[in-house]
Amino acid sequence: MSIFNDNLKRLKDVQNNKYDLIIIGSGPAGLTAGLYANRYKLKTLVVGKISGGLMTESHKICNFPTEQDIAGFDLAKKIMKNVTSQGVTILNDEIIDIKKDGNIFKVKSIRNKNLLTKTVILALGTVHRKLELKNEEKFIGRGLSYCATCDAMFFKNKKVGVVGGSDSALTAALYLSEIANQVYLIYRGKKLRGEPVWVEKISQQSNIKILLETNVKKILGDDKLTSIELDTPYLGKNFIELDGLFIEIGHSPKSNNYIKNLKIEVNEKNYIKVGADQKTTCQGIWAAGDITNNSNNFKQIITACAEGAISAESIFHYIQSL
Amino acid sequence: MSIFNDNLKRLKDVQNNKYDLIIIGSGPAGLTAGLYANRYKLKTLVVGKISGGLMTESHKICNFPTEQDIAGFDLAKKIMKNVTSQGVTILNDEIIDIKKDGNIFKVKSIRNKNLLTKTVILALGTVHRKLELKNEEKFIGRGLSYCATCDAMFFKNKKVGVVGGSDSALTAALYLSEIANQVYLIYRGKKLRGEPVWVEKISQQSNIKILLETNVKKILGDDKLTSIELDTPYLGKNFIELDGLFIEIGHSPKSNNYIKNLKIEVNEKNYIKVGADQKTTCQGIWAAGDITNNSNNFKQIITACAEGAISAESIFHYIQSL
Repeated sequence: MSIFNDNLKRLKDVQNNKYDLIIIGSGPAGLTAGLYANRYKLKTLVVGKISGGLMTESHKICNFPTEQDIAGFDLAKKIMKNVTSQGVTILNDEIIDIKKDGNIFKVKSIRNKNLLTKTVILALGTVHRKLELKNEEKFIGRGLSYCATCDAMFFKNKKVGVVGGSDSALTAALYLSEIANQVYLIYRGKKLRGEPVWVEKISQQSNIKILLETNVKKILGDDKLTSIELDTPYLGKNFIELDGLFIEIGHSPKSNNYIKNLKIEVNEKNYIKVGADQKTTCQGIWAAGDITNNSNNFKQIITACAEGAISAESIFHYIQSL
Repeated sequence: MSIFNDNLKRLKDVQNNKYDLIIIGSGPAGLTAGLYANRYKLKTLVVGKISGGLMTESHKICNFPTEQDIAGFDLAKKIMKNVTSQGVTILNDEIIDIKKDGNIFKVKSIRNKNLLTKTVILALGTVHRKLELKNEEKFIGRGLSYCATCDAMFFKNKKVGVVGGSDSALTAALYLSEIANQVYLIYRGKKLRGEPVWVEKISQQSNIKILLETNVKKILGDDKLTSIELDTPYLGKNFIELDGLFIEIGHSPKSNNYIKNLKIEVNEKNYIKVGADQKTTCQGIWAAGDITNNSNNFKQIITACAEGAISAESIFHYIQSL
C-alpha cells in the first residue's frame, strides 16, 4: 500500500500548486498521459472519478498486446500501480468548471478545489448509451443494468436479456451465459457485428438465444423489471419474461458545460475534434482517448493509451515554448 | 515451449496458403496488428527477421503503461508469447519482393517462399542512423556499435563514447556508466534533448562527461577502434582515447525496392504517408508503426501498437467489402 500512501502525501498540497498540466479523466488515456508527462517532469495532476475508467467494467480483454485474457479491472490496476509508483498524483474528484484567464486555466472540482494550470487534457471518455425508453431510469438497479461485469452475479441461474450486437454486447452475453440459466441476445441488425471470434463463441453456447432484427419496445414490471415487450414476435409471442436486462448498445462521448463554454469543436456525433497532436480548437487544451475523433474512431484501450502519450509529448514542447 | 511448437505446426503449410493479410515486420506494430487480425479471423501471416523488432535493443523501458522498468527484450517476449498463443503464425524470414497482380499481391521471401495475399501491412520500422564517416563500416564489431544493450558488456571497466543527445543516447550512456569506467556523451547540440528524467539522471552520474556542441570527425585505429577525433577540443585536446564508441543518433525508416516499385508515397524524410486508417497510397497496402508519418511522428512502442490495431480493423472492413 506504500505506493498509494505516496499518492496521499502528494495530494496534501494539491490546493497550493499551480500545475503545468491537469488531466481530466483517469482511464487508459489519462493515466498514460500522466505517465509520460511525469517523465517530462511536468507538474501534473490527474483528476478522475473512477481510476481505470470504463475499462474496469470489461469482463475479459484479449487484445491488449502484453496481456492474455485479463479482466479490465486487473488491467486498470496494473496501469494504476505503475503510474502511481512512478510519482504521478491522482485525485479522486470531478471537475465541474474550467475558465480561461489569459494563458491560465482556472479549474474547479466538485469537492471545491480551485486549481490553476497552464494546460489541460480532456480524457473523459464515454458513457453508456441508453435505449431512451420510458421507465428506463426507474429500473436501473432493479433488474436493468449497463454493466454485465458489475451486476451479472445478481442473476445466478436466472433469465436475462442483453440488448446489442457489438463486442460489448457479445462479451456480456458470453459472460452472462456462464452465470444465468438463459440469455436472450436482442439485436436490431440482421447480423451480429462484433469480432468474429466472439460471434463464433456465441453460436456455440447453447443457452444463448439470438433474436435478430428485434427491438425492445417496453420494459415492464412494478417494483422491479419482470418482462420486456419486443417489436418482433419471438416464438409467437411479443413478451419475454426476464429477471434482468443488460443494455450494451454502445457509448456516447461525455459532454460537459465547460466543453461548450470553452467553444471546443466537436463532430456530428459530439466527439471532440483533435489534430494529429491531439490539440483541440481551444489553445492550451488537448483531448485524448475515447472522447476524441482520432485513431480512425477505433476506440480501444491501446489507441487511448497512444493518444495520451501523444498529447503529453505535444504539451511538453508547448510548455517549453511558453 | 508448446506455444512455439504450435507456431511451427502452423508454419508447415505457409506455402500452400493464400492469405487475407501478410504483415511485414514483427515489432510492436506488426505483432499487435497480427493479434487484432487474428481476432477478426483473417488468415494472417506475420513475417519478420527479429521478433520484437528494435524494441529488443532497449535496455530499459519505463513508459509502457502496464510495465514498470522492463527490458525491451522482456517486453517483446511478453507480446510474442501472447500473440503466438492466441494463434498468430509468425515466419522468421525477410520479404524481398511484392508484386501487385490485380487484387492480389505476390510476395516473395529471401528463403524462397512465394506467398499470395489480399492485403499487406508494412510494419518494417526503422534502422539506426549512421554517422556516415569513413571507416564507420569497418569498425562495426571492432569497437563500434549501434546497440548499447547488445554490446555494453564487452566494455566492462573500459572507456567508451556515446554519440547523440536524445533518449536512446541518454539511456545508452546511463547503462554504460554502470559497466564502463568512463563514458563520454558527445552531442552536437547546445542542450541534451531527451526526457528530463534521463537528463537529470545523467547529470548525477559522476563517470559521465558531457561534451556539447561537439562532433566526431574521425574514427581511428588499426585492427580495432582506439580513439576518435573531435571538431571541438576537450580539455585542450582534439583526440580522445576510447575502447568503444556507441552511435545513438536516431533512426531512419527502412526503405526497400518494393516500396518504390509499388509507388507508395513517402514524406520528405522517407516515412510512409498514411491516412487516419493507416492506408498507404497503394490500394491494398497499409503501413503501421515507426515507418509511418502517423501518431504525430511520435515513435513509441505504444503508438506503434495502436497503429497496428487500427490497420487490422481497417483491413477487416476492407476484406468484408471485397
